[in-house]
Amino acid sequence: MATPKTPIIAFLIFLLFSTPTTSTATKKPVRGHLPCKEMVFYFHDVLFNGQNHDNATSAIVGSPQWGNKTTMATPFSFGDLVIFDDPITLDNNFHGPSIGRAQGMYLYDQRSIYGAWLAFSFLFNSSAYIGTLNFVGADPLMNKTRDISIVGGTGDFFMTRGIATLMTDSFEGEVYFRLRVDIKLYECWQ
Amino acid sequence: MATPKTPIIAFLIFLLFSTPTTSTATKKPVRGHLPCKEMVFYFHDVLFNGQNHDNATSAIVGSPQWGNKTTMATPFSFGDLVIFDDPITLDNNFHGPSIGRAQGMYLYDQRSIYGAWLAFSFLFNSSAYIGTLNFVGADPLMNKTRDISIVGGTGDFFMTRGIATLMTDSFEGEVYFRLRVDIKLYECWQ
Amino acid sequence: MATPKTPIIAFLIFLLFSTPTTSTATKKPVRGHLPCKEMVFYFHDVLFNGQNHDNATSAIVGSPQWGNKTTMATPFSFGDLVIFDDPITLDNNFHGPSIGRAQGMYLYDQRSIYGAWLAFSFLFNSSAYIGTLNFVGADPLMNKTRDISIVGGTGDFFMTRGIATLMTDSFEGEVYFRLRVDIKLYECWQ
Repeated sequence: MATPKTPIIAFLIFLLFSTPTTSTATKKPVRGHLPCKEMVFYFHDVLFNGQNHDNATSAIVGSPQWGNKTTMATPFSFGDLVIFDDPITLDNNFHGPSIGRAQGMYLYDQRSIYGAWLAFSFLFNSSAYIGTLNFVGADPLMNKTRDISIVGGTGDFFMTRGIATLMTDSFEGEVYFRLRVDIKLYECWQ
Repeated sequence: MATPKTPIIAFLIFLLFSTPTTSTATKKPVRGHLPCKEMVFYFHDVLFNGQNHDNATSAIVGSPQWGNKTTMATPFSFGDLVIFDDPITLDNNFHGPSIGRAQGMYLYDQRSIYGAWLAFSFLFNSSAYIGTLNFVGADPLMNKTRDISIVGGTGDFFMTRGIATLMTDSFEGEVYFRLRVDIKLYECWQ
Repeated sequence: MATPKTPIIAFLIFLLFSTPTTSTATKKPVRGHLPCKEMVFYFHDVLFNGQNHDNATSAIVGSPQWGNKTTMATPFSFGDLVIFDDPITLDNNFHGPSIGRAQGMYLYDQRSIYGAWLAFSFLFNSSAYIGTLNFVGADPLMNKTRDISIVGGTGDFFMTRGIATLMTDSFEGEVYFRLRVDIKLYECWQ
């Protein structure tokens, strides 16, 4: 009597293990509360202040009626909108090898404290990665860490989603800041 | 003969029930056509008009060549870009308790009718919620209801996605408007 | 001895097949490495240059300190932010039937080459589609094809995600360009 049932049980076992394996490997994303991918990068922003045109990586392009395009508006830079093209490095050295560019915009949108809102991409162009990650989210600068959303990606990061944790690693007045970005992807397509 | 098969069947039953249960509860998002979470909020925008600096919650920071930063461009405000830091309330009372801020930008982008495009975050900071929701989408103002995308979230709203339905609850000329926001999350991570 | 086990095995088989079928068909999105939906559109941008107010579909609303609102900044338009309301057509004919509008903004954010960053929506309003798709991503213009993220949708495109591949189909100096947009949705909710 064992004989007729063995194939059924074997088939059930096959289904149980083969179905998830097949779909994970060839068709479906991996999703879970543990990151499917983690990376740490730094990016460096040098704001145009009227005198550093050749070295600046960003510029104020919008400002409130009481502001201008070479100094941050008072108070709290509220209303300044900045376009940037910042180098991404693997460590905190501005002159270290760049593995791509962080490009997009940030804007200061808090009236009672320093806070920004970010919308930008990482454009990777290195031996490690080719592709982009797209970010949007709030950056309340007075918090030690701030989480923004990774809303999509292309190339090596096709259709990914995740969270980026931002930390201000350094800043010098209005002209320079360096952000550490801890990227944790929770939806990967493999 | 029953004895050797019972453990196999028990193991199959264990796998069948334990795998989905475990992954749903601890690793995977809930997704479905019925919202996994619904919330209703209001936010209030007071635009800077040159004379209300202390009370304004938003300011024009970009405008077309024919516009300026204290009045909306004609016609249809096309080309005006506004940065805002607006209180979020649970009801339609501007002076009611605030449970966070709506921060980001909107821009008027329709040439033949009033219409806007929104990119902003809700920053919750209350006993009910800590975290952010990130929104992008079109806001054709002449429609009674408009749907935009919730593209991500952090904190209590980790990795969520959904739809926000906007309704203009009140407006007073160019200076004040109040939006009702019906939030329906369809991807929740629990 | 077969009798008591048959229901168990039948129940296991029922569970194996019924659970995924039910959830896929009525509650969950379709996701996979093959697009669940593909569409091709064109959109047409006529930039305001100080003399074409009535025909322009877009306008510079932010520019760096060295720029202005009727000509692109030099070099590489870096720092120009443009709001647009562009017709979408099914073929490359500007005067062909429009099936909706592409509305939002683009900004030039590369200092050493032409490159842009996009954040906009397609607002469909035709017999074929009612609803919106929301896009964000980098557009390095010197590449023949560029991929951006579709981060959400509403109406007929409820909760969709995907990739849009952009190609510059035509351009005339600073004033006109036409983009071909190949839309591939990889997450559809049906």
